[in-house]
Amino acid sequence: MAHMLEPLLNPASIAIIGASDNPGRIGGMPIDLLVRFGYAGAVYPVNPKYENVFGLRCYRQVEDLPEGIDLAVLAIAAEDVTAMLKRCHARGIRAAIVYAAGFAEAGESGAALQDIMEAYVKESGMLVAGPNCMGFANLNTHAYTAFASVFKTAPAQTERGRVSLLTQSGNVCAAVFAIARELGVPFSQFINTGNEACIDYSAYLEYLAQDPQTDVVIGYIEELRDGARFIEAASACAEADKPLIIYKAGETDKGREAVRSHTSALAGNQAIYRAAFSQLNVIECQDFAQMAHIAELARYRQRSAGRRVAIVSISGAVGAILADKCIGAGLEVPTLPSALQDTLRAGIPDYGMVSNPIDVTGNVVNDPGFVRTALGALASSDAVDTIIVYAPGYLLDRMADDLATVVAEHGRLIVAVDTGRSTRREFLRDAGIPVMTDIGMTMQTLAPFLHWHERRARKAWRVLAQPGASRAGSTPAAASLPGNEYDARAWFASHGVPTIDERIATSADDAAAAGAELGFPVALKVLSADVPHKTEAGGVQLRLTNAGAVREAFHVVMDNVQRHVPTARIDGVIVQRMAAQGVELIVGAVRDPVFGPALTVGLGGTLTELYRDVTHRLLPVDATGAREMLQELKAFPLLDGYRNAPLRDIDGACEAIAAFGRAFVALGETAGEAEINPLTVRERGQGVAMLDALVLPAAR
Amino acid sequence: MAHMLEPLLNPASIAIIGASDNPGRIGGMPIDLLVRFGYAGAVYPVNPKYENVFGLRCYRQVEDLPEGIDLAVLAIAAEDVTAMLKRCHARGIRAAIVYAAGFAEAGESGAALQDIMEAYVKESGMLVAGPNCMGFANLNTHAYTAFASVFKTAPAQTERGRVSLLTQSGNVCAAVFAIARELGVPFSQFINTGNEACIDYSAYLEYLAQDPQTDVVIGYIEELRDGARFIEAASACAEADKPLIIYKAGETDKGREAVRSHTSALAGNQAIYRAAFSQLNVIECQDFAQMAHIAELARYRQRSAGRRVAIVSISGAVGAILADKCIGAGLEVPTLPSALQDTLRAGIPDYGMVSNPIDVTGNVVNDPGFVRTALGALASSDAVDTIIVYAPGYLLDRMADDLATVVAEHGRLIVAVDTGRSTRREFLRDAGIPVMTDIGMTMQTLAPFLHWHERRARKAWRVLAQPGASRAGSTPAAASLPGNEYDARAWFASHGVPTIDERIATSADDAAAAGAELGFPVALKVLSADVPHKTEAGGVQLRLTNAGAVREAFHVVMDNVQRHVPTARIDGVIVQRMAAQGVELIVGAVRDPVFGPALTVGLGGTLTELYRDVTHRLLPVDATGAREMLQELKAFPLLDGYRNAPLRDIDGACEAIAAFGRAFVALGETAGEAEINPLTVRERGQGVAMLDALVLPAAR
Repeated sequence: MAHMLEPLLNPASIAIIGASDNPGRIGGMPIDLLVRFGYAGAVYPVNPKYENVFGLRCYRQVEDLPEGIDLAVLAIAAEDVTAMLKRCHARGIRAAIVYAAGFAEAGESGAALQDIMEAYVKESGMLVAGPNCMGFANLNTHAYTAFASVFKTAPAQTERGRVSLLTQSGNVCAAVFAIARELGVPFSQFINTGNEACIDYSAYLEYLAQDPQTDVVIGYIEELRDGARFIEAASACAEADKPLIIYKAGETDKGREAVRSHTSALAGNQAIYRAAFSQLNVIECQDFAQMAHIAELARYRQRSAGRRVAIVSISGAVGAILADKCIGAGLEVPTLPSALQDTLRAGIPDYGMVSNPIDVTGNVVNDPGFVRTALGALASSDAVDTIIVYAPGYLLDRMADDLATVVAEHGRLIVAVDTGRSTRREFLRDAGIPVMTDIGMTMQTLAPFLHWHERRARKAWRVLAQPGASRAGSTPAAASLPGNEYDARAWFASHGVPTIDERIATSADDAAAAGAELGFPVALKVLSADVPHKTEAGGVQLRLTNAGAVREAFHVVMDNVQRHVPTARIDGVIVQRMAAQGVELIVGAVRDPVFGPALTVGLGGTLTELYRDVTHRLLPVDATGAREMLQELKAFPLLDGYRNAPLRDIDGACEAIAAFGRAFVALGETAGEAEINPLTVRERGQGVAMLDALVLPAAR
Repeated sequence: MAHMLEPLLNPASIAIIGASDNPGRIGGMPIDLLVRFGYAGAVYPVNPKYENVFGLRCYRQVEDLPEGIDLAVLAIAAEDVTAMLKRCHARGIRAAIVYAAGFAEAGESGAALQDIMEAYVKESGMLVAGPNCMGFANLNTHAYTAFASVFKTAPAQTERGRVSLLTQSGNVCAAVFAIARELGVPFSQFINTGNEACIDYSAYLEYLAQDPQTDVVIGYIEELRDGARFIEAASACAEADKPLIIYKAGETDKGREAVRSHTSALAGNQAIYRAAFSQLNVIECQDFAQMAHIAELARYRQRSAGRRVAIVSISGAVGAILADKCIGAGLEVPTLPSALQDTLRAGIPDYGMVSNPIDVTGNVVNDPGFVRTALGALASSDAVDTIIVYAPGYLLDRMADDLATVVAEHGRLIVAVDTGRSTRREFLRDAGIPVMTDIGMTMQTLAPFLHWHERRARKAWRVLAQPGASRAGSTPAAASLPGNEYDARAWFASHGVPTIDERIATSADDAAAAGAELGFPVALKVLSADVPHKTEAGGVQLRLTNAGAVREAFHVVMDNVQRHVPTARIDGVIVQRMAAQGVELIVGAVRDPVFGPALTVGLGGTLTELYRDVTHRLLPVDATGAREMLQELKAFPLLDGYRNAPLRDIDGACEAIAAFGRAFVALGETAGEAEINPLTVRERGQGVAMLDALVLPAAR
């Protein structure tokens, strides 16, 4: 069955409402493109001012059109849009694209216009893209519905394309298209979504995931409106082995400010986006040219490849530079097994190198048979996954035939780098060997692509995408959220997070008795939902070694807190047995407005925020996922016997982190954030304990 | 007076020893190039096999040549080189380039050959480049002495060039040349230095610093042999306002390994190189294309420019992306003053933006007069320094004339970014407006260039380059290096680093008495040059509150140390008054084999190495420099009242760091490294104190 968006993205007939005979105007440009590139479907310009435009009959009004047209392009002012949609719908037109700006992005009156439009679309069931949108293009059918001069100025596409663009900015769409066309990347769909009033970004992504004309998606995102649907659509891309290459805007506040006024949407938390992208095996980019290059490289995604790279260079210096860059980008450049080194040594002079990077030296051109032997040995070795060959200009020319032979014989990915002017670049590309022309861009392209390659085997997205993952959270087991620290700890403890011995006391004598019962030394902390920063309020006393000290501390704490937060309702104090000192972690969770529940793990203490040594995941996260998170921390060695310090109870920490994640999800949508800070991790076998915990309601 | 290297780099006559009539062979290629490109000087091929090569008379032997030739190119085998140099010298030839490999880079026998050559060169005073060197080219005089096919394959250079290449790898030289020529960068000198047996990298740099044909230097370095001379030469470049753009290889161990076998030199400490580059205002690069682009941008270095950037974009999205990237690269995108915003608002629709980034919207092309007004207002504002204009293809075309007018009127640097295919790129470049074609490369190029721009006013290199800086250190005041912790502390204290009250004790009773004298609590630490890791050896006891505890601790420490390091000579124990807890810094110094004494400052404690939150400078560093170092630390807020913590004695810390640096330099060349760890920084006004100190001799 055809996908719901088919009339928009693969229309059989197109009406242009507000047609013009001027190819420089928005009502003329798409007609010019449709005619110029030979769109095979029917095109119906509509404008009472013209009899004909671009050699086509121009209709006076929508009501004169034949019935059952797939798509209307509305090149008319914002105020007239909804009325026109009604007339189109009445005429049986299935879908529409609204170019006009002046809707939600343009203040209150525009937002009101958009509300009216949305309400009508909902009621009618019509399929409406935009508003504030540059339109689309299907490069394979030549269904151009975009006002974008780039189709005329960029190098013309003659072959069928299998790369699709999906962006939230028309200008970015055009810019990436232009850069990629200069590289020769052929496109399938050119989609920009505008205000997404009725059709969400992820709906288009869903279409592309199942589109047989699309193998690779290049995306640009300012803000997602429906994270859950994005997770499903991105997972569908991953399952279909279609690389999803995304630029997410809004890295800094200044950028975010501009994005906000641009799309009338708040940019989400970049760290959570990044976590989601990583779990969904999205290739995150920071540059248009990089996206275009990765899309080109993705043609070769069925070749065997991976993180372990062999570097074959005619220059020791450039080989070393490539090795540096590979390692810096998280790839490996393994030293080759000695048998393989021997094979290479047979043809490489003494002043060359055989260990990896391999310096075959410029003399290699004098012994062409050897190139085939050497590359063949590397391509059939299981010590490396991917091969980079550096040879500029005529040196690459001389190696080209051998490269083609080796690639044909083995399924291995081989990437050539030519900083000169090889005359055989086209031959090599046709033979299945991508040719890069710049060291820096080679690494910016190859490294993310190889990481994608490795991660696709792990299928981490499945944890998020499965319907039973209950990412939204079930009904809270408790009728209300835990109100204070004690209740929060109890909630997490009931889900399996180890806690410490503690008592609530409401008088100095109670507190002293609790201390005696728990065993000294103890800590004493004020218990109040109204005092989130207990230490700053003087509400904490540590290392109390006897009953008298506890009594005294009780009064000090009460005095301090009443002075600092006179309005606080105080539920008493908590008396805790002082825990054996461990490594302190911070474990937190937020309900992200886009992606829902997400987990944060980091090293605890003052330095957490200064060094930002934290890592994030969308929930659910099991103990294995928690271990991966811990291992991503720069401070992980502190848990793992750094400098002869004792090994810490990493297993216990992983179980506790996973339990905390489950407990947070179980709190449901009323919980905005929660935190254990610190979770102290004792020596191996002695477990962990949450010393402090907090639950905050979601902002309304 | 002509520079010493003139015969090599600007020769009036050239002999090619081992000439060939085959342009593909190393003895033929330079002759082919000299003839093909019309070198105006005399060319003398030498080879008994030929009567003529490339239409030139070929001489039988060196002895037949006219006397007083500037330069001989030796295209002969390594074994024959020194003998031929002698014959050249006898014939009055001033300089020679040795192509041959098989010297120091090729093991022991090669190293021996190189020693013989070096000895002869020293004795004769001849000027010899290489060996293992691809040769040179002077693109302005067409004096090609390099065997490099790139001169034939890269786009031909018709204008005079003012950019010079200086590399330690012939292949890198050729690769960068090829990439830069594709961008249209015209060159002056093409130099690669090979093994640098007789002429050091920095000698060439010295030449380029004073060369009237060179405005910009692009360098590639694997390892410097003479750091002091490099400092002088780089400072000369800085004084002459010539940007020095350098790629330093050897970032990771793997790369370093390859570099090592490549140049038979150990790669130096990358962090020290980076510190030196920063102090010398070298533009450090990580990519060939980036270097070429910066060289191109450096043409405009006399325009007024700086870190505060105004972004003018026809797309809100691309404006936001550029703002993000500017901020990420350490530039500023200041919000514009309201008067300036008002000027802009007059011509920008409501849905555009005027605060910065400025979204002029695509409609700007309909109001060309406004572009001149808006850019003129920005170019004459003192709220910003530099202007980036994003407009693809025909939109840039329409703005081109206005851009040219504004640039002619104001001295401000304006950079255009065109991701489309503007037909007026050449017009713009001729008008003094660099045009970039890619967002990512724009930022990789512009940001380092603007930082160079800002730093040239600070002239930080002058501290290093002045002859009186005594970077090498004077004769040590002490006859020998401090042997143990106590002596080290005394040495640093004598140069002005505050220390803490302490006594040496050699018996339990002495120790107890010292404790009473100092005031309890005290710490007790073993004193021995043989026990560098005192804590691990059980040689430290803290928080001793009375005489009895001190006595007991003395015996514990002695027992522990004797068990852990039975051979240690123990000089007694140190009794220290326990210091008020402060923020702990690590302050260290090394004598770098290339650059000499260098200072390291970081946050102390376990996390120093995990987070690598340290910063480096070549010495000398005064208190102002020390403050800059502290401010570069991510942990700096800990000193500066982070989260309402008390302000720390930053002034005291700066004085102490500067004093430590002086004390290290004063130790002279026998000191390899030294460290204060920790330097505890108390609350403001209460000073700092070194708790532990260490001096280690230089490795022999």
